Parts: sequence; C-alpha cells; structure tokens
Amino acid sequence: MPSTPKPRPNVAQMTPYVPGEQPGPHEQVIKLNTNENPFPPSPRVLEAIRTVSAETLRRYPAPKADAFRATAARVHGVTTDMVIAGNGSDELLAIVMRTFLGPGEVLAYPDPTYSLYPVLADAGESRVCRVAWGPGWQLPTSALLAAAPRAIFFANPNAPTGTLVGKSAVRELALAFAGLVLVDEAYVDFADESCLELVRELPNLILCRTLSKGYALAGLRFGYAIAAPEIIAEMMKVKDSYNCDAVAILAATAALDDQAYARQTWQAVRAERTRLESELGRRGFEATPSQANFVYVRCPGGKARELYLGLKQRGILVRFFDQPGLADRLRITVGTPLQNDALLRALSS
Amino acid sequence: MPSTPKPRPNVAQMTPYVPGEQPGPHEQVIKLNTNENPFPPSPRVLEAIRTVSAETLRRYPAPKADAFRATAARVHGVTTDMVIAGNGSDELLAIVMRTFLGPGEVLAYPDPTYSLYPVLADAGESRVCRVAWGPGWQLPTSALLAAAPRAIFFANPNAPTGTLVGKSAVRELALAFAGLVLVDEAYVDFADESCLELVRELPNLILCRTLSKGYALAGLRFGYAIAAPEIIAEMMKVKDSYNCDAVAILAATAALDDQAYARQTWQAVRAERTRLESELGRRGFEATPSQANFVYVRCPGGKARELYLGLKQRGILVRFFDQPGLADRLRITVGTPLQNDALLRALSS
Repeated sequence: MPSTPKPRPNVAQMTPYVPGEQPGPHEQVIKLNTNENPFPPSPRVLEAIRTVSAETLRRYPAPKADAFRATAARVHGVTTDMVIAGNGSDELLAIVMRTFLGPGEVLAYPDPTYSLYPVLADAGESRVCRVAWGPGWQLPTSALLAAAPRAIFFANPNAPTGTLVGKSAVRELALAFAGLVLVDEAYVDFADESCLELVRELPNLILCRTLSKGYALAGLRFGYAIAAPEIIAEMMKVKDSYNCDAVAILAATAALDDQAYARQTWQAVRAERTRLESELGRRGFEATPSQANFVYVRCPGGKARELYLGLKQRGILVRFFDQPGLADRLRITVGTPLQNDALLRALSS
Repeated sequence: MPSTPKPRPNVAQMTPYVPGEQPGPHEQVIKLNTNENPFPPSPRVLEAIRTVSAETLRRYPAPKADAFRATAARVHGVTTDMVIAGNGSDELLAIVMRTFLGPGEVLAYPDPTYSLYPVLADAGESRVCRVAWGPGWQLPTSALLAAAPRAIFFANPNAPTGTLVGKSAVRELALAFAGLVLVDEAYVDFADESCLELVRELPNLILCRTLSKGYALAGLRFGYAIAAPEIIAEMMKVKDSYNCDAVAILAATAALDDQAYARQTWQAVRAERTRLESELGRRGFEATPSQANFVYVRCPGGKARELYLGLKQRGILVRFFDQPGLADRLRITVGTPLQNDALLRALSS
C-alpha cells in the first residue's frame, strides 16, 4: 500500500496565516476585527452584478481583466501596462514573492507589519529578516538595507499599528536600494497621502492595492498592483492564467469607477476614527495616531485579552494578537457611528 | 538611481501558459476553442447571484468555502475534510505543486497532456520528466515510475487527446507508486467513469475538478480537489487565506447542487460529440474516440493550420497547437447542435 505523501519540509513546518474570526452570515455580531469598510459598497456594484448573464458565466473571463486595468490606469493616471489585477491583494503579494524571491533569498520587513509576509516567505523557502520599527514608527531604513535583502515589504499605513510612513521616506529607501520595495497600500484610502506619484519615477517600487477596505468589497477578493511595466510583465507570467473571475471584474471595475461614492465613505470613516481615538483616550486607552480604518490601542493596565473576551461575550468582535509585544493591545476596526457607540458603551460599563 | 529588479532566473526564462483566444463579449464568433460547455449554467446559479447583498460583498468570505465543501462532500459521498475549494482548478494544481514539490524535484507526466503542468513546475523550480503515452493512449505506467518522480500528474480524460485512462489502470499506478498521483478530472463529467471511488482507498491520490466545463461556469473560476484529509490539510496551509470569493461560493454551490440539470447538459454534449465524430469522419478527419467535451482530429492531409485559419476567417474559432507532433490536428469543442452544424457546413464547403 502507498502511504500519505509527505509535503515539502517548509510546508510541514509552516504556521499558516490565521484570518480573523468570520462569524456566519446569520450571527448577530458587531464585527470590528478584520477591517472591513463599515459602509456598503457603491450601489453601482450591485447593479453591475445584477447584469451578469449566463453567457458571462459560461465563457472564460478576460485573462488580464482588461476592463479593470483600463479603469485603474485612468483613475490613477498611469498606463495600463503598469497595472496587474489579482484575486485579492494577498494573491498579488504571493505573485511578487514567486516572481522575485528564490529559495534562500531574503525578504526584510519592519516588525510588526502584516503577518502574511513571513507565511509567503516560508511557502517559497525564502528567508526573512525582521527589523524593529524606528522611534515613532519611523521606517528603519538603515537597518533594512543592512540586512542586504532581495526585497523589502511593508504595509503603509501599517497593520496593526495604523501608522503611515511619508512618501519622502519611501522614496529615500527605494533610491538607496538595489532590490525591490513593495509598499502594501491596503489601507491607503483612509490616509493623508499615498506613494502613487513615486511609482512613475522609481523602477523598483511596487504598490499593492485592494478593494477589500476602501471599496467595501472584502467578499469579492479583488486587488491590484501598480509598478513599472517591466515589473508587471514578469508578474503576468507567474499569475494563474485566469486569476480574476468575470463577475469580480465587472463589480470591481464599477466600484473603482465610482470614486465619488468611495471618497464619501473614506471621509466618514476618518471622522469616526477621530471620534473613536478621542473617546478611547478618555477611557484610558493609548491610541497610536491612525491613518487606517482601524485604531490600535494599548488597553488600560495592558489587559487586552480580558477586554477582547469580554467584548466577544457581548457580541462585539475586535482583534487581539496573542503575541509577544502585541498582547497588551487591541486592533479595533472603525465601525459605523452606531457600532462605535455600542463599542464605547460596552467599554464604559 | 535604482534599476529594474531582476526576476528569478526561472521566471525570466519561463514560457508562460498561453490561454486560447478570448474574443470580446460583443464579437460574434462561434467559439469552439477553449472547451466551455455550450449550454448555459443551471438557472439556479443566476438566481443565487441575484440574491447577493451588499453585506455579502462587504464582509470577508468564508476562508474555506464551507457551504461549497459541504455540498461537494454530499454530492460525491466523501467527508468535508476530503475537499478543498479553489479559484479555478488551475489554482488547485498550483497549490498541489507548492505543497508537495520542492525545487529540483521531479514531476512526471505523459505527453501530451494539459500544457500548464510544466509552467507550474518552472514557477517552482521543479524539474519535469515527459513520458510518451503508450499505444492507444494507454498510461505509460512503467516509464512514469522509472523516472522516480515525486509526483505524477495527468488529465483524465486527457487534453488535447480526449482519451480516458480506466480507473483500474489509475489504481495500479497509485498502488505501485510511493509519491503523489494527481488525476486532473476537468473533463470527467463527459466521460464513462471517474476515479472518485479510488480516492477513499488510496492515500496518495488527488482528484482535481472544475466547474468550468461540466457546470458551464468558466467565467466564475471555481474548482476543487478531493483527496485524503491529510493531503487536504497540508494544501489548506498553502492556499491564500480567502482564495474563493463570496459570490463564486454561492454560485458554485448552487451549480453543484443542481446535478439533474448538469447531467442533462452532459448527455446533450455526449450525443453531439458522437454526431460530430461521425460527421467529421465522413469528411476525412481521423478522430481519437473522445471522452471529453471536445474532439481531437487529424485533419485531411495534415493541413490543420490552414483549416484553423480558414475557420477563423469565417468566425469559427477552434484550437490549433503549433507544436511538433500536434500540428496536423485540431481540437474542436463540442458546441450546440446549431454551432456544430455551422462548423460542419464550413468544413464541407
């Protein structure tokens, strides 16, 4: 009898990424744990989905999601060959790793940041070098460069801290570095600035974007990357042939096209973020000033676990990272005004 | 100034998979080149898509596509932990490679088969060993084993030949082999038998399925794999956290659940396939007896390129593989009765 085949050693030892809890569709919870946009997507998205025909489903989709790429190029003022679409920005991060990092090569990143990066490195037998953030969450440029990596990744605004590295610091890093700089702009729609203008200047910069947060489409799985055409062309070789489905292409294109609607939700989230930081401050939480759609707070007395469990019991989910250095804090998604009121009430009682 | 970062050497040298031509949605062509089902998906699929709410889009989907897994387990008589869902069966093939094949390790496959396998091997720096099919398209078991590979992949029914390896031959191969056997059953819904019953017995067998062909959902990107729970658990570690989107999960679940409808389309395709083989035979084409939703024919005088171009000019797309050993043949998707009539008329004139 044959036996169960062994996975690759790196897979056998791998600690997979742990997504935040996803309650079932009928569970009544206030969900502030995985940074969804609290407002619904543009009405044009549902309209687009209502137009889907049997014929659209029956046929293979456009392999490169042409309609979406054209819209993204127009909205961001870049050329179409500077855009690649993917099945969530997670897929694009994985494609960048597979395209540019070989086994044994080093990915450097400031720590803490999005916890998926080391999982992707493990999957490709690459090595990682974690570098502590500088004081005030500044980019630790010298230490990152000193690791002599092949690529540097970070989220900007960062998760779970919500802090933003200014584009001048990103530019200095990319100019000083012979390798690849990936700036994961998943939360950039809620920030004061982006690195978009740099991507036309710097041949080694990749920006990753998602429709999960700013466009309220986490359920749709759609992201994209913007970079020099030479980088995009190599990534195209590595992606699955038809990586985006026809329904998602239609819906994502409609969402990105409706900038006016999306901007309204970003402004509303920013206003609630300010209120939440201030109200949490009055209750003894220390907030790092956030540029994202969540706040990252040190809990009074460091009692994050207790608060997380207490809130969960009251039907409010927030994110607790049970890890050294993070276990005194909570990451709380900015909800609707009513959801934030409920959270603040629960924390006051 | 930094320069453009170099991709990994295997990526730089890589020949990407070339998908069949995808005409735009408004081009009037008879599309018999990429093996879509000629009939529309179950009406329940569009009904399911019509129920999608803003809230479904706003929230992250179920990371493991629970609803789909439960339906697949019930339909196929396996347990839920024997099923993994993916963004098209292409993603599942890639996940199997990343889970089980390391750099330098050997993937063996009979040649010709689905031309994506060597592309995936290149992407993972694995090596490939191509083995010619046996006489009458029998599985070349001894030669495959003699390559001492880590895994053996093949499509069954095979593409582009349409031929089927019986399950007893698959069982013998898996029993004699210490590594992994992946049977890519993309076209199995149109065949006389599947390897489903073997997957409960053999710990080293993975079946890959897709909803693109049998369920007329190529636009949706949805596939799944069935294997022993130990294999599925390792694949789950490697997949992207949220690899299937919420709309696709709903639609794919509705499609798989409507077995009665799907079976009708399979029977209609099989009836047209028989007619097409017979009519093409009368016109001097030699058809390999097909168990898939396409026919693979040697053209009269070996003039495949000329016929391909002539049909294209008349608005009929078929698949021509411009490769040694394949260049005298065409792969023609079985269309609707009217489409097949048009093809036969074009070939007669």
